[in-house]
Amino acid sequence: MNEWQPSGVITITTDFGHKGPFAAVMQGAIVKRFADARIIDLAHDIPAHWPPEAGFWLSRSYQYFPSGTVHMAIVDPGVGTERDVLLVVKDGHLFIAPDNGLLAPLAENADRVCKLNEDALDRIGLGTPSLTFHGRDMFAPLAADLAAGKICVDDIGTDSTDWIPGLIEDPQVGSARVSGIVITVDAFGNLISNIDASLIESFGNPMVNVAGKTIAMTTAYGRVSPGEFLALINSFGVVEIARSEDNAADGLGCERGAPVVITDAK
Amino acid sequence: MNEWQPSGVITITTDFGHKGPFAAVMQGAIVKRFADARIIDLAHDIPAHWPPEAGFWLSRSYQYFPSGTVHMAIVDPGVGTERDVLLVVKDGHLFIAPDNGLLAPLAENADRVCKLNEDALDRIGLGTPSLTFHGRDMFAPLAADLAAGKICVDDIGTDSTDWIPGLIEDPQVGSARVSGIVITVDAFGNLISNIDASLIESFGNPMVNVAGKTIAMTTAYGRVSPGEFLALINSFGVVEIARSEDNAADGLGCERGAPVVITDAK
Amino acid sequence: MNEWQPSGVITITTDFGHKGPFAAVMQGAIVKRFADARIIDLAHDIPAHWPPEAGFWLSRSYQYFPSGTVHMAIVDPGVGTERDVLLVVKDGHLFIAPDNGLLAPLAENADRVCKLNEDALDRIGLGTPSLTFHGRDMFAPLAADLAAGKICVDDIGTDSTDWIPGLIEDPQVGSARVSGIVITVDAFGNLISNIDASLIESFGNPMVNVAGKTIAMTTAYGRVSPGEFLALINSFGVVEIARSEDNAADGLGCERGAPVVITDAK
Repeated sequence: MNEWQPSGVITITTDFGHKGPFAAVMQGAIVKRFADARIIDLAHDIPAHWPPEAGFWLSRSYQYFPSGTVHMAIVDPGVGTERDVLLVVKDGHLFIAPDNGLLAPLAENADRVCKLNEDALDRIGLGTPSLTFHGRDMFAPLAADLAAGKICVDDIGTDSTDWIPGLIEDPQVGSARVSGIVITVDAFGNLISNIDASLIESFGNPMVNVAGKTIAMTTAYGRVSPGEFLALINSFGVVEIARSEDNAADGLGCERGAPVVITDAK
Repeated sequence: MNEWQPSGVITITTDFGHKGPFAAVMQGAIVKRFADARIIDLAHDIPAHWPPEAGFWLSRSYQYFPSGTVHMAIVDPGVGTERDVLLVVKDGHLFIAPDNGLLAPLAENADRVCKLNEDALDRIGLGTPSLTFHGRDMFAPLAADLAAGKICVDDIGTDSTDWIPGLIEDPQVGSARVSGIVITVDAFGNLISNIDASLIESFGNPMVNVAGKTIAMTTAYGRVSPGEFLALINSFGVVEIARSEDNAADGLGCERGAPVVITDAK
Repeated sequence: MNEWQPSGVITITTDFGHKGPFAAVMQGAIVKRFADARIIDLAHDIPAHWPPEAGFWLSRSYQYFPSGTVHMAIVDPGVGTERDVLLVVKDGHLFIAPDNGLLAPLAENADRVCKLNEDALDRIGLGTPSLTFHGRDMFAPLAADLAAGKICVDDIGTDSTDWIPGLIEDPQVGSARVSGIVITVDAFGNLISNIDASLIESFGNPMVNVAGKTIAMTTAYGRVSPGEFLALINSFGVVEIARSEDNAADGLGCERGAPVVITDAK
């Protein structure tokens, strides 16, 4: 299904942080072209210059937004140099981001992948953007016009099968063993891995190994006593290591990037 | 007055922090069911697993939102285990949160208190929620349908007089003496107590004792010289200890939970 | 052009931080009076009690919002004491803030500058505000009624040519030499100066001196190798010192307020 019908909703994901007017002026630039846009900040605290976390969260979150949402993501160390911009259509959602691996998790099984045409900004009546803030000068106006239905993907993109792959390896799957990494740590200190639940569904008794500790799986944070470590399939469908009413990252001395190995103890 | 008429406004209060897409996917889940919802993030930085601060801020803030607002609050260490969900109607506002003491400050003088029926999600056509993110899978869709007027409290709740009390003691009131605690510290370092202005209105000359220091009351931050400590009734109706153009928490070495005693020096 | 026609958009800039319900209750107070307001948080992390950064960002950001936007800014250590409130009309935008130097960068070339009349709150049917939170009790309702077109500037303000000047000096311009300061540091650690691009446009070979280092100018972050320092005219039209895919503030041991001198090496 290549069709994409806008719902008027736009999400924004960046590594700009919550300091200064950077997120706000993108919202302003959208509203200037599409007064009725519904804009939702997905996340602005992606680690600086690190596209994989943005791609992870987008690929695990988009389904909670209305079909027809435009998701713009700007983690873009190459801004102002030669780099392509990707448009990905998947399950009725449209994603737009620099082609630097960010959208790889979505492009792999997409309904459609396009590269942005060089004349895309001309097409919507805009001149040359700044060399340092394409979020405001390129992604925001394009997202606005797409979400408003003023333009469609065909107007600004050309189908492509050639995009930059993701910067981190997919989990490695062996016999009764899956290895991945901590892809991000949330505000509670929960360690969120890139290991999808499907990779361990055949395991009779999965045991999660992280930071030298072996942790059994359960179903909810409150299923063990406060202070105890636990692992579970979290609400985004991946394996997560937590500590009941406490901070697992602090307790394990563990950060983003740490290896996570799940074995089947049967 | 048991009536509650939705205004289409929803506020969200959590301990999820500002990291990752957690607040955003709750907004997405609301918009998916109620495209015209007006959503306002009340606070997402409640201390992890600490319901009393959420209840304090909600009980002191709700009146600044339109009558008919749905306030959803998720500080929920018991998510996925047996715990009830409370619906509270008060002054034309509707509150929904886990029954863990969070809503106690509102339930005490409420117009109506209900427990959420077990079949509430069935009632709105939803299946079993995840065991770790009821904010997205239960509170958001219920708030959306309540705010949209698709369901009313009677459709999903049953009146109850039995709820979990608040986790912190109310201030103790003696003769010419009131003692409470610092319930939260704001971004300026102002120490906000749980002592309501009404508790000291009979005092001729109230003196605030905190961190070994005795501080006189005044009316505005700028009424003393920069760097001087002061106390005042703040804009939420409670006693606050501040330092003019400076940080009282740092200056006093004082944190959330510190005792605050007010005596009448007459 | 003194005319100002509301677009229904309101931006909010404060030093309240992202902790607690402070930003939220201002939004509530706006929505209570003007249900269709489009509210955008411009920035809430202005350094406490430091108006110049708010004025810098507002004066560099307003043009990215629709004409007819009301920009309210509250960095207000004098709240509750005698201080005026300023209304500034410029390029079809309306700004409202305490008269403490915050709006000086906009007032200097404004289409119109007014002081808020003492009876402005009476005019919109409100009583005396709290002495500690005029953002919620005065600026929000006034901005709401202005943005809704219920009142106009003439209803609540009186023209004035007398306002508090900015707290920081404008850059000093010499022969082949301009000196300014780091006005703010963004989340990437980029050092943003108050030196406008126009001040160095005659320079044949501008060299930026900061923290004992001399840095050449380029056009985009990716134009030098990762880890190298660079300077450029940023997307807000001022000189910025950065480090490619790295943090310039950390690398240079440099903070807000640091001197920046640009010389012409010809």
